[in-house]
Amino acid sequence: MTNWQIISGGVTAPRGYRAAGIAAGLKPSGLPDLALIYSEVEAIAAGVFTTSQVRAACVDYCRQHLSTKHSAHAILCNAGQANAATGSQGWIDAIESAQMLAQILNISSDSILLASTGVIGQRIKMDALRDGIPKLVAAASETGGDAAAQAIVTTDLVTKSIALETTFGDRPVRIGGMAKGSGMIHPNMATMLAFVTCDAAVAPSLWQKMVSRAADQSFNQITVDGDTSTNDTLIALANGESRTPAITEMGPDAEKLEAMLTEVCQYLAKAIARDGEGATCLIEVQVTGASDEKAARQVAKTVVGSSLVKSAVFGHDPNWGRIAAAAGRSGVLFDQEHLRIQLGDFLLMENGQPLPFDRAAASAYLKQAAAASAKEVLSTDSSNDLMQVESGEPVAFSRPASPTDFKDQTVAIALSIGNGSGSGVAWGCDLSYDYVKINAEYTT
Amino acid sequence: MTNWQIISGGVTAPRGYRAAGIAAGLKPSGLPDLALIYSEVEAIAAGVFTTSQVRAACVDYCRQHLSTKHSAHAILCNAGQANAATGSQGWIDAIESAQMLAQILNISSDSILLASTGVIGQRIKMDALRDGIPKLVAAASETGGDAAAQAIVTTDLVTKSIALETTFGDRPVRIGGMAKGSGMIHPNMATMLAFVTCDAAVAPSLWQKMVSRAADQSFNQITVDGDTSTNDTLIALANGESRTPAITEMGPDAEKLEAMLTEVCQYLAKAIARDGEGATCLIEVQVTGASDEKAARQVAKTVVGSSLVKSAVFGHDPNWGRIAAAAGRSGVLFDQEHLRIQLGDFLLMENGQPLPFDRAAASAYLKQAAAASAKEVLSTDSSNDLMQVESGEPVAFSRPASPTDFKDQTVAIALSIGNGSGSGVAWGCDLSYDYVKINAEYTT
Repeated sequence: MTNWQIISGGVTAPRGYRAAGIAAGLKPSGLPDLALIYSEVEAIAAGVFTTSQVRAACVDYCRQHLSTKHSAHAILCNAGQANAATGSQGWIDAIESAQMLAQILNISSDSILLASTGVIGQRIKMDALRDGIPKLVAAASETGGDAAAQAIVTTDLVTKSIALETTFGDRPVRIGGMAKGSGMIHPNMATMLAFVTCDAAVAPSLWQKMVSRAADQSFNQITVDGDTSTNDTLIALANGESRTPAITEMGPDAEKLEAMLTEVCQYLAKAIARDGEGATCLIEVQVTGASDEKAARQVAKTVVGSSLVKSAVFGHDPNWGRIAAAAGRSGVLFDQEHLRIQLGDFLLMENGQPLPFDRAAASAYLKQAAAASAKEVLSTDSSNDLMQVESGEPVAFSRPASPTDFKDQTVAIALSIGNGSGSGVAWGCDLSYDYVKINAEYTT
Repeated sequence: MTNWQIISGGVTAPRGYRAAGIAAGLKPSGLPDLALIYSEVEAIAAGVFTTSQVRAACVDYCRQHLSTKHSAHAILCNAGQANAATGSQGWIDAIESAQMLAQILNISSDSILLASTGVIGQRIKMDALRDGIPKLVAAASETGGDAAAQAIVTTDLVTKSIALETTFGDRPVRIGGMAKGSGMIHPNMATMLAFVTCDAAVAPSLWQKMVSRAADQSFNQITVDGDTSTNDTLIALANGESRTPAITEMGPDAEKLEAMLTEVCQYLAKAIARDGEGATCLIEVQVTGASDEKAARQVAKTVVGSSLVKSAVFGHDPNWGRIAAAAGRSGVLFDQEHLRIQLGDFLLMENGQPLPFDRAAASAYLKQAAAASAKEVLSTDSSNDLMQVESGEPVAFSRPASPTDFKDQTVAIALSIGNGSGSGVAWGCDLSYDYVKINAEYTT
């Protein structure tokens, strides 16, 4: 299904999209903090949002919008203040933001979608937003994808964006995406945001189904610390500007589009996990032999989220007992006599029986993933902007939409729990001193 | 309902029990590692065990035993090897352990219950066990409760034991208890074990119900790192040696006994949370206004288990947004406009609206709990044995069955999520550098 190629441009790679990212004065650091994605025509829109009962105003706004209208023209995203747990004033601010942008774009305010990330309990700095929106609209361009990807990060160490291209008949169809992860060097900061643009023509309900399924196999399968944010948002637009035939039901074209969409989402999801707070490597857990995919995904996510497994990986300790214990408590029923555990190429348990293995070599395997990851974070493309910050905020540097699958930076754990056909994958990162430092050492 | 008093003696405080703890050579450190609790008469027995699909042999053994026979004479517990994920050989070792002890005690082997804690994937050192069991039986005495409490710990910093006494008519009725928490300075070590002795006469099915309910309000409401162990075990014996009338159904006597049992379990549960790996304080989360008790307990446990909340407490950061976010993702439905959050005496949010508060004073409140806890850990009773260890293992020192409710060492978080009558409490600890250090820095 990999009949596509990686192209540059991020969310502005598909036809008919413009984007911008500017510094509007919302972040104390002065870094870019306001982003716009704009489709020249009203695009089909689908969304997946946090399941939390404590939600940001923008999340409620988007859900309400998408429950009645399955299209949108523009997405406005601010970083700095999450506008979550801000009471009724937060809702008023959200409405005003949408109305301001709509007026300047000369479109209906019900064509605007919103997202926010930053400190929970803080309203958006509305004065700065009012000044910033006209500048943001003026800055929007067909090459603005990278700037937008930079303006949505908070404490991410790298920006996350990608674009893929395939052909339908003889015409190109593209999907672009950008995301931010939950970094919390500044306390309270926490959100996963992802935005996907596509120039295919797809029926609204089919697009929503594709987006939901892709989210289940990507963003919903990553965990950094188990804390679901108040603002988690995935919005995906499809504007039809590829001028390819409309896809209205499942079939070869739909499957091809969904596979490419899933690839974009999985790339962004892995990039978020890899850049988790304090992470030294990416952990990938593959589960097979489950009764169904849901069960497999649940086991995988439990193992990758286990503090003990994460600590062991950080300590380069091939501690398979913790993997077995985490699988056991996942809530999925299985017979422990069928349990098989593999770490990289090392088979550690089969049929529930522990096996002898080369402990030093397994530890070296864990070390190598961290070493490769360190190299990756440090080796920036010198042609990209390196954005140094004044006041203790992290260095954010842009990256090309990387073709890497993170393979050399990945600790691969494979479990089989039985003879079922269900399989699933989850991604996470290790638990390091820096995670605690990032989340505790800030003193108010 | 507090018509009882604290007495000394731990699990040997109730009548008709003997206990022992010896160093049998199971732990590399040479510390006590084998414990026995013995009732002079066959006692009613109830148990609550890990829900994990990956279970220690002793857990399967006890469950099988208690599903057919609701009484027992003795509990044998070893520390050092968890005998979990040890395949069929683990089961053979468990059976042999029970048979050996039964032979020396001259009782039937189906009167023995078993528990293990230590490294997952390691069999019990059977040679050491075979040598140890006769010495253990010889050492058993009516004052052996403290020795037994010391022999079940692994990396706990303090032993955990308590005994309460009340009267039924003019006769004393006592409940004793001891527990160990999950400390993992030696990797793979993880288990919560708790043993309760009682000299009341109770019908088996009623006793099991009381024990299950007490566990739900105590051990099932604590979390250190969210990782349920393969060996978690609570066993409660009731031998009738108080010679008080048999309690066969709910009523004033049963309620009194259950309240005392719950108090014992809650004390031990709080002691485990307080002594969580790397913990600097105890965190108590009270939830009210839920639709029912189960929902309230779920919210409380989610908040107390949040890595972000735990990190914030460690950093003395009154970061209420993380409390709101954790409650929101607990899976319990509520309207965020009803959310009320209090930290100690500081009201931080009401009706979903953030309130201004004295941030410095709230941070000082968090500091004070950690300071009080540090003092508590260091101030040992000099009349007790202080057990120094040779090789990097932690200092384990015994303590009197402490009358403290840990109040000054507790960070109290109170949430109200609506107008329902459901309330619940959960306990945990903060997330510190030492947690990561304890679980990562051991290099194999």
